[in-house]
Amino acid sequence: MIAEPFWRYRLEIEFDGRPFAGWQRQKNAPSVQQAIEEAALQFAPGEVHCYGAGRTDAGVHAYAMTAHIDIQREMSAFDLNNALNALVRPHPIAVLSAEAVSADFHARFSAAERQYIYRIVGRRPPLALEAGKAWHIPYTIDHDAMREAAQHLIGLHDFTTFRSVQCQSNSPVKTMTEITLTSDGQEVAVFLRAPSFLHNQVRSIVGTLERVGAGRWQPDDVKTALEAADRSRCGPVAPAHGLYFAKAVY
Amino acid sequence: MIAEPFWRYRLEIEFDGRPFAGWQRQKNAPSVQQAIEEAALQFAPGEVHCYGAGRTDAGVHAYAMTAHIDIQREMSAFDLNNALNALVRPHPIAVLSAEAVSADFHARFSAAERQYIYRIVGRRPPLALEAGKAWHIPYTIDHDAMREAAQHLIGLHDFTTFRSVQCQSNSPVKTMTEITLTSDGQEVAVFLRAPSFLHNQVRSIVGTLERVGAGRWQPDDVKTALEAADRSRCGPVAPAHGLYFAKAVY
Repeated sequence: MIAEPFWRYRLEIEFDGRPFAGWQRQKNAPSVQQAIEEAALQFAPGEVHCYGAGRTDAGVHAYAMTAHIDIQREMSAFDLNNALNALVRPHPIAVLSAEAVSADFHARFSAAERQYIYRIVGRRPPLALEAGKAWHIPYTIDHDAMREAAQHLIGLHDFTTFRSVQCQSNSPVKTMTEITLTSDGQEVAVFLRAPSFLHNQVRSIVGTLERVGAGRWQPDDVKTALEAADRSRCGPVAPAHGLYFAKAVY
Repeated sequence: MIAEPFWRYRLEIEFDGRPFAGWQRQKNAPSVQQAIEEAALQFAPGEVHCYGAGRTDAGVHAYAMTAHIDIQREMSAFDLNNALNALVRPHPIAVLSAEAVSADFHARFSAAERQYIYRIVGRRPPLALEAGKAWHIPYTIDHDAMREAAQHLIGLHDFTTFRSVQCQSNSPVKTMTEITLTSDGQEVAVFLRAPSFLHNQVRSIVGTLERVGAGRWQPDDVKTALEAADRSRCGPVAPAHGLYFAKAVY
């Protein structure tokens, strides 16, 4: 905990995940958290702590990661927002908004829901414009089959199959509120929302759905894999660079 | 002209314009044309010529630039497409399709229409995810006012006001077939199509429309500037990195 007195602000943060080892501060590797804390220290000396709604892996992007930042200086949210954007350069991070909040707001523990979007482009040619921003599959994938398979994952389930072996969550039982696939030509965007996610859950699910899209799995195979509650029954884990933290709901 | 015998193929090419001095081959500066010709020379020794439907400026992107390529080796369009994509790496260029065509097809001279898209994002925070892919304006812009102003530019006009002083076209009189603005939150995409464009015409028009969006010009001021047929009456030229060559029609 930061020493009193401190001021807390809620932030919405967009970032390109490519140069980062993830959201969370690490030894000897750049993180979004560290970039923001170091920017804040330039105008708010003392202690600075910044916590995100989720801990994203290396290479994962964010349309809007909610965070809270504690600083030992009072300033307007507007000034904080501008100062962070000015000083966080040249990192590909943009603070979209800032708002003063009370100390009982916590970006992680107060969040009631997280939303992710995973982008897949299925086409033979490589990606020139969207390289590093979507998962490139060098063949056409069947979005309808993926959509059918995804229905098996909605609701309360034991998601052991779709959970990293390093996951530190107490329980593999989670509620998946929604999985919606939106097609746009060769691209499909998988939108997922849930109160919380297990480690690598989105990428494990998307990698498995891709096997269905490729015709290698039948939609019902996803149900069988889920019910097996066995990590070895998961499809390949989809790469980080197609994943976006989209929103946290409070 | 390339020596006989040669084989001609039509290509559709996506590229990220950031590392390039433009489409066209130049001394001492990387170009998309050069990257493609050098890739082709690796499997089709002899002469290689590649011509695009348009000559884009440094930093301008393409969703689908049509080009034709002449090589002194017969091969299937499928093999050509794959070989170009394999060998053009690590340049951010993707050959989306290839098709064998007769020698009377010319990517530039056969084109009946060109289409461009210009992306503008109006918001105070910088762009983290779309940096270099859209023009960032650090304030909100009025899309409806821009839409109204654009109507004055539709049809047959003397576009001297919206033409680079370096433009080599014989006449400043051109037909603008369509300008449509599509809003998506803080982003507006300006879609323009015409049989042909003057040098810097799109960027000159978009830079002027932006002044309207910012409230500094009235929509009718664009009509007055057009009718003046005076380059000094143009608004600022919009930056290259928001511009995309979208399509050529034959």
